[in-house]
Amino acid sequence: MKLDITRMMAEVVGKHGSSGEEIEKHWPRVQSILQTLEARRKAGELPFYDLPDGGEFVERIEEYAEKARAKFRNVLVLGIGGSALGPIALRDALKPACWNERPDELRDGLRLFIPDNPDPELFSAVMEICDPAETLYVVITKSGGTAETLAQFSAVLTGLKQAEGEGYGDHLLFITDPAKGALRQIAREEGIQSFSIPQAVGGRFSVLSAVGLVPAALVGIDIRALLAGAAEQRETVFRREFDRNPSAAFALLQYLAHVERDQPIHVMMPYANALFRLADWFRQLWAESLGKKQSVTGETVYSGPTPVAALGATDQHSQVQLYVEGPFDKTFTLLLPQKYRASVKCGKHYPDLDSIDYLSGEDLGTLLKFEGQATQRALTAAHRPNMAFIIDEISERTVGGLMYLLEAATLVAGGLYEVNPLDQPGVEAGKVATYALMGRSGYESVKAEIDKERERPPRILE
Amino acid sequence: MKLDITRMMAEVVGKHGSSGEEIEKHWPRVQSILQTLEARRKAGELPFYDLPDGGEFVERIEEYAEKARAKFRNVLVLGIGGSALGPIALRDALKPACWNERPDELRDGLRLFIPDNPDPELFSAVMEICDPAETLYVVITKSGGTAETLAQFSAVLTGLKQAEGEGYGDHLLFITDPAKGALRQIAREEGIQSFSIPQAVGGRFSVLSAVGLVPAALVGIDIRALLAGAAEQRETVFRREFDRNPSAAFALLQYLAHVERDQPIHVMMPYANALFRLADWFRQLWAESLGKKQSVTGETVYSGPTPVAALGATDQHSQVQLYVEGPFDKTFTLLLPQKYRASVKCGKHYPDLDSIDYLSGEDLGTLLKFEGQATQRALTAAHRPNMAFIIDEISERTVGGLMYLLEAATLVAGGLYEVNPLDQPGVEAGKVATYALMGRSGYESVKAEIDKERERPPRILE
Repeated sequence: MKLDITRMMAEVVGKHGSSGEEIEKHWPRVQSILQTLEARRKAGELPFYDLPDGGEFVERIEEYAEKARAKFRNVLVLGIGGSALGPIALRDALKPACWNERPDELRDGLRLFIPDNPDPELFSAVMEICDPAETLYVVITKSGGTAETLAQFSAVLTGLKQAEGEGYGDHLLFITDPAKGALRQIAREEGIQSFSIPQAVGGRFSVLSAVGLVPAALVGIDIRALLAGAAEQRETVFRREFDRNPSAAFALLQYLAHVERDQPIHVMMPYANALFRLADWFRQLWAESLGKKQSVTGETVYSGPTPVAALGATDQHSQVQLYVEGPFDKTFTLLLPQKYRASVKCGKHYPDLDSIDYLSGEDLGTLLKFEGQATQRALTAAHRPNMAFIIDEISERTVGGLMYLLEAATLVAGGLYEVNPLDQPGVEAGKVATYALMGRSGYESVKAEIDKERERPPRILE
Repeated sequence: MKLDITRMMAEVVGKHGSSGEEIEKHWPRVQSILQTLEARRKAGELPFYDLPDGGEFVERIEEYAEKARAKFRNVLVLGIGGSALGPIALRDALKPACWNERPDELRDGLRLFIPDNPDPELFSAVMEICDPAETLYVVITKSGGTAETLAQFSAVLTGLKQAEGEGYGDHLLFITDPAKGALRQIAREEGIQSFSIPQAVGGRFSVLSAVGLVPAALVGIDIRALLAGAAEQRETVFRREFDRNPSAAFALLQYLAHVERDQPIHVMMPYANALFRLADWFRQLWAESLGKKQSVTGETVYSGPTPVAALGATDQHSQVQLYVEGPFDKTFTLLLPQKYRASVKCGKHYPDLDSIDYLSGEDLGTLLKFEGQATQRALTAAHRPNMAFIIDEISERTVGGLMYLLEAATLVAGGLYEVNPLDQPGVEAGKVATYALMGRSGYESVKAEIDKERERPPRILE
């Protein structure tokens, strides 16, 4: 994994870029953060670093997946947030586009549906497509108590029990906490098969645990290669030299852009549809880890960059106008595959039409690759700091490596922003209000507060 | 269409909100902008305002679509930017989720693929699924010269001619400029059927022209109801009273949040998967219209808010931590359907487990609706200005109305920011660089510049 930072530097993009002196000045802080992280890892506090080791765990997943692939046609993952974004990113990156729409003979793994929203319109459509008799339901919730996921679970269970009778349990797989929560309890009582999420691995750092690996194995992704790619990057993420640690360098450059030059919007823009949902996965990682009211020392900081997922070349026709001419409030991280896994050639049909003939005989991949380079150039000419991960080819190895690297970068960024990148205290208020509105017992006083707020006269225009 | 602005106001969210005095002070500017826009509309300069009138045009589309629906199984739209985002938004909003994956007997219109990127991995997958014999290719480019679209077109043409011989033209439909460009020329010379995009209607304002209506009609959307919904909103968009003009009020509140209170990030967050791509369509509309280096008076302004598309409830588990605890640099516009078009009930399976039993018998739609309200409350409690479009139900009428309203709002915002919302000068540099890299004749000097830039030693970490 190469990180090209040429165009982040002031010598190339001018005053909106970073200088060598600035990096030199702040790098010792990163070194000390890395030292702390390494110590915490050794103390067993940060087990996500060692997920690439896999071990017998991986074998169990592979065995399970092999049997399930022979038995089912569909996997329906019930999960939201960290329980969905990783599996979606892996499926999109590593299996052909339009995976579920492919004719069965062109698909070497199960169809994978991840309707990560309790939206009845979405969910009923997915239920209509997935006949319970040929569907495996993978229920993923770390805590075992996520409202959206349990609601979906209890909705499918009715039809599943009707269709399969006592054998319904064979269509269920739980991925949850090793000991706690409703889902673990049900697994124990009803003998449902399950995999555990290590307790100290949070949702958004769980893609290389069973959360990501089980759905991946079920669609036929080589999970060993994925872990090997991550393990390769592990060799780099604690390095103390800026030029040999792309992960920490990424974190520092983003942090400096934000804090020193008021560029709080961090756009990640892959030039490949296959990587768009990886950028969306990163969006959770970066936002939920760094968006914090309080610093680790208890100060009120209201901190955090805003990650944005964009797609090249598509967003050249949507967002690039703003990126190039708008305020200097953004950095750009392009993900640039050097080659694509498919070839589509333009025909030679109109030799007399100049506006189409220059494309004759060219591959779409060549056009897309050049568009990535053209955007680098356009951003640079407009003095917009931009960097790029140069990816040989999208593969289990490179995707595993990139995701691991970005997770490691997030911990370093947490250190730089001086916030706890592993918690998410801010989502509690919304959960509590939902419980209250749903009439869950124990939330009556919140319900009363909400009712009182509703007496406030609204201001509605129409 | 109701716009609830209660929680945008300082009296509810505190100093990060707008005050009645502020609105009163700036509203005369909006009134004068509306007057100018109305005059320009009357002078025929802004024909998008009158697209809802449809007329015989609509009949022609309906007739064409009826025949095509009997003849084909798939529509493949070749287009990018404004030529793709509108059709995608309409399909997702108005047809069941997973439309293309549904069994044929559950689908009352053609499968619709819109691979809006020259990505060979994506495009080859779509080509594998769509047999040319049963596919209609709708090529959409306003200028007739968009590189990505013509590349895709020349790529499919080879296989189509092989499969269909002389009848290949029956599988093509062009939507392009009435007179100019390569596509128009081909249509004339080869007798390809076509629809025109009115010359003064730009890509991002074209959803209610043939660009959006033809794909919509092909999948079985009621395009008359769509236009009627837009026409209804037209009655509101020129009103001079703040409280009776949701479109202009939306524009003013966003503008004031940005310019008066440094909230440049405008999050649009529908509580419905069906509307997510409408938020993405808005992302182009808002970014490309308002992200401008120069003002209408020629001043350098580097202006423009950054629109972000989020999804409720999904992003409660990804972005809401940042939204609630991060910097006060955002406004939120929730899209809140009051009811959903499907019902999915939670079963009563675990009466002894409190963390799941409170959901028993409830509909997923109830949960989702309450989650929207909970997020309104959480944002408000955290002093984050947020408003909401209250949508009775997602339908042709409401979607047509909402899109029209947002287009009209964009013109008002252009007036407030004092930029031209109808051009996009900033995308030219990237296009030119792409032509140069592709070796198109006439771009040799740019190619020489690029080659020279490449001599600069890169800074690459690995």
